[in-house]
Amino acid sequence: MPDRTDLRRLARRVREGDLPAVARAISFVVDDRPGSEDLAKELYLGSSAVHKVGLAGPPGSGKSTLTGRLISYWRGLGLKVGVLAVDPSSPVSGGAFLGDRLRIQDHSGDPGVFIRSLATRGRVGGLTPTIFGAIHVLEAAGFQKIIIETVGVGQDEVEIAHAADTVLYVVTPGLGDEIQALKAGIMEIGDIFVVNKADLQGKDKAVADLRRALAIGAEASPDGDWSAPVLATSALTGEGIEALGEAIERHKAHLDSSGQRGRRLKDQLRAEVSLYLARRISRSVEERLTESHLAALVDRKTDPVTLGHELLAGRGGA
Amino acid sequence: MPDRTDLRRLARRVREGDLPAVARAISFVVDDRPGSEDLAKELYLGSSAVHKVGLAGPPGSGKSTLTGRLISYWRGLGLKVGVLAVDPSSPVSGGAFLGDRLRIQDHSGDPGVFIRSLATRGRVGGLTPTIFGAIHVLEAAGFQKIIIETVGVGQDEVEIAHAADTVLYVVTPGLGDEIQALKAGIMEIGDIFVVNKADLQGKDKAVADLRRALAIGAEASPDGDWSAPVLATSALTGEGIEALGEAIERHKAHLDSSGQRGRRLKDQLRAEVSLYLARRISRSVEERLTESHLAALVDRKTDPVTLGHELLAGRGGA
Repeated sequence: MPDRTDLRRLARRVREGDLPAVARAISFVVDDRPGSEDLAKELYLGSSAVHKVGLAGPPGSGKSTLTGRLISYWRGLGLKVGVLAVDPSSPVSGGAFLGDRLRIQDHSGDPGVFIRSLATRGRVGGLTPTIFGAIHVLEAAGFQKIIIETVGVGQDEVEIAHAADTVLYVVTPGLGDEIQALKAGIMEIGDIFVVNKADLQGKDKAVADLRRALAIGAEASPDGDWSAPVLATSALTGEGIEALGEAIERHKAHLDSSGQRGRRLKDQLRAEVSLYLARRISRSVEERLTESHLAALVDRKTDPVTLGHELLAGRGGA
Repeated sequence: MPDRTDLRRLARRVREGDLPAVARAISFVVDDRPGSEDLAKELYLGSSAVHKVGLAGPPGSGKSTLTGRLISYWRGLGLKVGVLAVDPSSPVSGGAFLGDRLRIQDHSGDPGVFIRSLATRGRVGGLTPTIFGAIHVLEAAGFQKIIIETVGVGQDEVEIAHAADTVLYVVTPGLGDEIQALKAGIMEIGDIFVVNKADLQGKDKAVADLRRALAIGAEASPDGDWSAPVLATSALTGEGIEALGEAIERHKAHLDSSGQRGRRLKDQLRAEVSLYLARRISRSVEERLTESHLAALVDRKTDPVTLGHELLAGRGGA
């Protein structure tokens, strides 16, 4: 365990925006290393919340290229941009979507840009316990926009809605499945819909289809007065990125003026506290869960509920 | 809360294979209604583990139609089949992929088939807490095959590997993204790969691509002696279903003879106990997490780690 002086020094460097320190602090927090809770506390208390933009949508919709374009756009406005890319990586290889990552690496010499992949590592119970810690490190380091990009669809997309303030839902023209997914309810997650790869055929139809789907679902929208726009972009040519950047700011202004930003922030914090505790407790229980406990479960001599209660109570000495 | 006599009667009817009782018991357990823990205990202790087959793969790969074919195949062998379809439904609408569900509804008059959708409901921390309870109800009711079908990709797919004994990974010809996903590590999850919609063009190439990708990843395989086969099926015409059914039995025999079945079962039980406790604890913490706690977090007067510890210790009386 590093001593408190080391941690103080690391925290100070993070606050100065030193990128290697940011990388190290994120590893500390994400891997839950000894001392990481003290570091997390210190960084959290000295900083404030930053606008977090989530990118959801199916693989192949060009989210990483779009992320690269948004980085350039915000850098052009003088803003510091942090990116957390969440990968539904294999529990075995722990590998990340390297191809995708490479597309946003051309910002690597820029001290105003920080990019980090967070592998979900196949943990049962989801990806997010570590993402909040990484967000707080970026907040402390003075980043002004944080992009959270997910690779998966399904549960990962729902979870991004618990961590981001503004969610972009990205699709491409000609993929019918997204519309099906939207019908099933994913549309409530998106604050802004992006038809990316607008250089492809079918863009206008895709935009029209999405607008129709959204109009049908509008009455179910939790956001009352915010009507989610549908924009076309080409991450390849850069077309439409400025309009997207402006729509993101309009959404942020809406969150602020409607009081929704505070509500979303509280929801995020509620999820963070809850996930933090769930992780801590399930770890300590897993440590106490012995082979003989498992054998008793396999042989149906006890059941998961009873054993769970015993472990919680510190009993279950089998 | 229903009295113990009612629960006993429900448990008895479940064991007799009464489908309305099975449906009611699953609702009980999934919704965590009062008395559900007693019911879960009673059903678990009186039954034994059943072979669980998971279906993963991207939306549009025809998993639901394939599920329908597998049901028919196993019914033809005289086996009772239970299906749990896991939907990454919206936190708002709670809606399910009804279109998909309808395709497997033609078994609805058959007392040897039970089909149930489980909405993930956008809960942070994943889908699985409730799936294990539903599995145990089906086990108690004497189902001999349990199909677990997921709609999403990403985290949902990883989670199915924690609940199923044999995982089928289903793709269609001509979708390059799946191969990309496989490269990133999802291949370790699949025990059997299915190129579905083999009536479409590109089937042979898709099979060859998959075999090549699997050969590259073979050294990373956790299963040593099991070499995951790649099969082509047409859920539309029924072509290849029998060969798939036989491959599933070969995998089950491999699990039994190698001792892996027991290991997987223990992993499933470990996940079940852990998720059960995480759910219980995070609920009780959420109940204790007040608006003033959240306001203190927003104002950075405290931090999530400190507050979490206080809530765990029963303090944090703000």
